[in-house]
Amino acid sequence: MATLVEPRLPRGMRDMLPQKMLQRRYVIGVVERVFERFGFEPLQTPVLELQQTLLGKYGPDAEKLIYDARHREGKEDLALRYDLSVPLSRVVAMNPELVKPFKRYQIAPVWRAERPQKGRYREFYQCDADIVGTSSMLADAEIVAMIFTILSELGFREFVTKLNNRKVLTALGEYSGVAPALLPNLYRAIDKLEKIGQDGVREEMQRAEISAETIAKIFELIALPVDDLNAWREKFRVYPRGVEGINELEQLTAFARDMGVQAERLQIDLTMVRGLEYYTGPIFETVVTEPKIGSLTGGGRYDGLIGLFSKNSLPATGTSFGIERIIDVMDELNMYPPDLGKTVVDVFVSVFDAERRAASLAVAMELRAANINTEVWYDLDALGKQLKYASARGIPLVIIVGPDEAAANIVTLRDLSTGEQQQIARGELVERIREKLEHA
Amino acid sequence: MATLVEPRLPRGMRDMLPQKMLQRRYVIGVVERVFERFGFEPLQTPVLELQQTLLGKYGPDAEKLIYDARHREGKEDLALRYDLSVPLSRVVAMNPELVKPFKRYQIAPVWRAERPQKGRYREFYQCDADIVGTSSMLADAEIVAMIFTILSELGFREFVTKLNNRKVLTALGEYSGVAPALLPNLYRAIDKLEKIGQDGVREEMQRAEISAETIAKIFELIALPVDDLNAWREKFRVYPRGVEGINELEQLTAFARDMGVQAERLQIDLTMVRGLEYYTGPIFETVVTEPKIGSLTGGGRYDGLIGLFSKNSLPATGTSFGIERIIDVMDELNMYPPDLGKTVVDVFVSVFDAERRAASLAVAMELRAANINTEVWYDLDALGKQLKYASARGIPLVIIVGPDEAAANIVTLRDLSTGEQQQIARGELVERIREKLEHA
Repeated sequence: MATLVEPRLPRGMRDMLPQKMLQRRYVIGVVERVFERFGFEPLQTPVLELQQTLLGKYGPDAEKLIYDARHREGKEDLALRYDLSVPLSRVVAMNPELVKPFKRYQIAPVWRAERPQKGRYREFYQCDADIVGTSSMLADAEIVAMIFTILSELGFREFVTKLNNRKVLTALGEYSGVAPALLPNLYRAIDKLEKIGQDGVREEMQRAEISAETIAKIFELIALPVDDLNAWREKFRVYPRGVEGINELEQLTAFARDMGVQAERLQIDLTMVRGLEYYTGPIFETVVTEPKIGSLTGGGRYDGLIGLFSKNSLPATGTSFGIERIIDVMDELNMYPPDLGKTVVDVFVSVFDAERRAASLAVAMELRAANINTEVWYDLDALGKQLKYASARGIPLVIIVGPDEAAANIVTLRDLSTGEQQQIARGELVERIREKLEHA
Repeated sequence: MATLVEPRLPRGMRDMLPQKMLQRRYVIGVVERVFERFGFEPLQTPVLELQQTLLGKYGPDAEKLIYDARHREGKEDLALRYDLSVPLSRVVAMNPELVKPFKRYQIAPVWRAERPQKGRYREFYQCDADIVGTSSMLADAEIVAMIFTILSELGFREFVTKLNNRKVLTALGEYSGVAPALLPNLYRAIDKLEKIGQDGVREEMQRAEISAETIAKIFELIALPVDDLNAWREKFRVYPRGVEGINELEQLTAFARDMGVQAERLQIDLTMVRGLEYYTGPIFETVVTEPKIGSLTGGGRYDGLIGLFSKNSLPATGTSFGIERIIDVMDELNMYPPDLGKTVVDVFVSVFDAERRAASLAVAMELRAANINTEVWYDLDALGKQLKYASARGIPLVIIVGPDEAAANIVTLRDLSTGEQQQIARGELVERIREKLEHA
C-alpha cells in the first residue's frame, strides 16, 4: 500500500455532497420528466469514444479542449466525450433499425478542458433532447416549446428565445461578398452586436480585413426590421438559402404559437451566431430576463452531422440545457421547493442500550419494509449524542425504544422540528409516521 | 469537416438504447430506493481522478487495468475511476466536516480494461453503499440485510451470503506458518476450494512452494466445522487477530438475525477470499441459488483505506452491487415487471392534415400539461404510416383529430393493444386517458 497521499480533486472538477445532490436531483428530475412528457426516450452512451469519432466535428478551438484517454496496453486512441450530439449521431448511424423519428434524451457528464473559473467546470452535465429523422420545423418548434415548459416548471418567470438560422448567416455572407475564408471572422464579429454595439462590431470587422464596402452592406442588412421578414426575403431574392432560412423561421414561430408559446417570447435575432460548427438550420438560445440571468440554454438543427458517420444522412435538431448554470442560478436565488430537505432520511431510530437494541432494529426494519427511509444508530452511545446526530443531519423524526417503552409495547416519537414528543402503540407506528410525513 | 468515419464503439463498451434503458432504470431504481430506505444518501464524484489518488490501492494486477487520461495542454496525470470506494475515501478525507457515521451510495460507471467477454464490460456501473465512521458489526450486518432486501425486491428467490473475515485469513497464515511473501499464493489457492476441491488446492499450494507441513496444518484448520466457531477460537488461542475475526463474525450474524435475516441465509465460509487488497475485516459475497446463477454481489470492511488519504483514519464498510451481472441475469430470465413497456410514451397524437394540425398540437400540449407523456407526428403523412409508427414504437394509445372530430369538438381514441376505438368529448379527454392508463 502507498504512503499518505494528499486527497485532491483534478482542476475544475467537483464532488457533489449529499445535500447538493438532492438539489441536483430535483432539477434533473424536472428536466427528465418534461423530456418524457414530450415523448423523448432515455439513451446512454459510453463516456469514452474513439478519438476518430470526435475529431473534425466541433471546430479547431473546441477540439483543443478534448481529453484523451488510453489504457496502458490498449491499442485504441480514446477520448472523453465532448458533448452528447456527436455520440447520438454515431448511435443513429450504427443502428439503422431505430424507428424514425427517433427522439432521445441524455442527461450525462461531458468533459472540456476549459480554463476553470466561477461557474465553469471541466466535468459538467449536459441535458440533451434531440429529434432525428424529420426536417419539419414542427420538430424545432417542439424543442422551443419544451424549453419553455422546463424553465417555467423550475420557477423562472420571464424568458425569451432568440431565433436565427444558419442559412440566413450563410446568405448574409454571400450577399455582402465576404470571402469564404473570412466568414468565421464575420460571424464572430456580428455575434457581439448586443455586447459591443455597432461601432465595436465595425472595428472588429475592420481588424478582420473585411472591406469597407462589405461592412456597409452587412450593416444595411442587419438594420432591417425583424418583425417584417419580407424585407429580408426581398434582399435575399437571388440567395435561395437565405430565403429558405427566413421561411423556416416563419414556420418555426407559427408552429411554436400553435403549441401555446406566447409570441412575445420568441425573438428573431438574425445576428445571433451559435459557436458549434455543425449547425445547419434554425438555431436558438433562451435568455432568462426575470430574474435577469442571461442565456441558459441553446440548440439548433444539424442536418449534416449523422452524414459524417453514414451514407444515409438524416436530419436532426435538438437542444442542450445548460444545467450547471441553471443549478448555480437556482442556488443563488434559492429557487428550490421548501420541502426539499437536507437528507433522504425520514426517521432516525435511536438505540437505548444493548438489551433494547434488538427492539430498535426490529422497529427500523418494519419502517423500511413500509418504504419509510430509516436510519438506526450503530453504537452504544448516550441518547443525547444520538439526538445531536439526528439533528445535525436534518432528520425530522426520532424514535426512542427504552425499557419503559419496550415493557409497554410502545415507542416514543419525537418531532425534531417542534420538539413535540408522543407515545405510540407499536402496532400503529407505521401509520402514524406516514401521517406525520405527509403533513410535514 | 471530416470525411466519412466508420461509426464504432471502443472495445468492451456499449450503448444503451431506449428499451434497454427502461430496464436498467427499473433495476437501478429498485436498488436506489432500498439504499435510501436504509438511510444512505446520494454522492457524486468526478469520473476523472488524479492518478496519485488511485495508484497503490487495488494491488498490482488490478492497477494494470486502469485507464489514463490527459488533456493535451494539461499538466495533471489523470485516470478514470476504477471503483467507487477509493473516490469515497478521498471525499471523506477532504471533507472532515461530514457528520459521522457518513452513509452514502453512488450508482455510477467505472472503467477497467479487462479482456472483453460475454458479461464483462470495460465501462460498467457499480452500485455502492458504504458506511464510514463506525467499527460496529451492526453496520456490516445492515449491509448484508440490505443486500437481501434488494435481491428479494428484484425477484430473486433464494440466496445465501458467504461470510468471512480478513483477520481470520491473516491468522490462518500465522497459524500455519506461511512466509508473508507466500500469503497471496495461499489465499489464491484456498479461494478455489469450492471450485477445484481439496486435491486441487493441495496441488496449487505445492506449486506455490508452500511446505508439506504447512499445507497439512492448513487442511487441519479448514476441515473444522463452521457451525461451532469455538473450535476455531481454540485453534487461534495465541493468534488474537484470528479470535477477533471469529468474534466479529459471530456478532455480525447475530445482528443480521436481529434485523430479520434468516439464519440459513448466512453461511460462514472461512476459506472465502475477496480479491481487493484493501479489505481488513468482515468480507461477504452473496450467491443466488434460485435461480442458480452464482455470485451477484460482494463487499466488506476496509478500515485502512481512508487512512491512506488522511492522518485521521476512519473505519468503513460497504458493498458493491454487481448491477451489470444482475441486469444480464434479469434479461435472460425475463424478470422485469410485465407493465414495463417498450417506451416512455403513453399517447401518440396523429396529424390528419395541415388544416387540422393546430388542433392536434393543442391536444398534445393539453395532455403534456396534464403530465401524460405524449408524442405528436411532425410531418404530413397518411394516417396509416403514422399508426404503423405508433405501433412499432409500442405506444399504447393513439388520438385522431380529423375534420369530423374537429367539427364536433371530439377526438377519436384508439387503443392499439385491443384495436378498440371510441370518440371522446374534447373536454373529457385528459380524464378518460388517465383512466385508460391506470387500467392498462
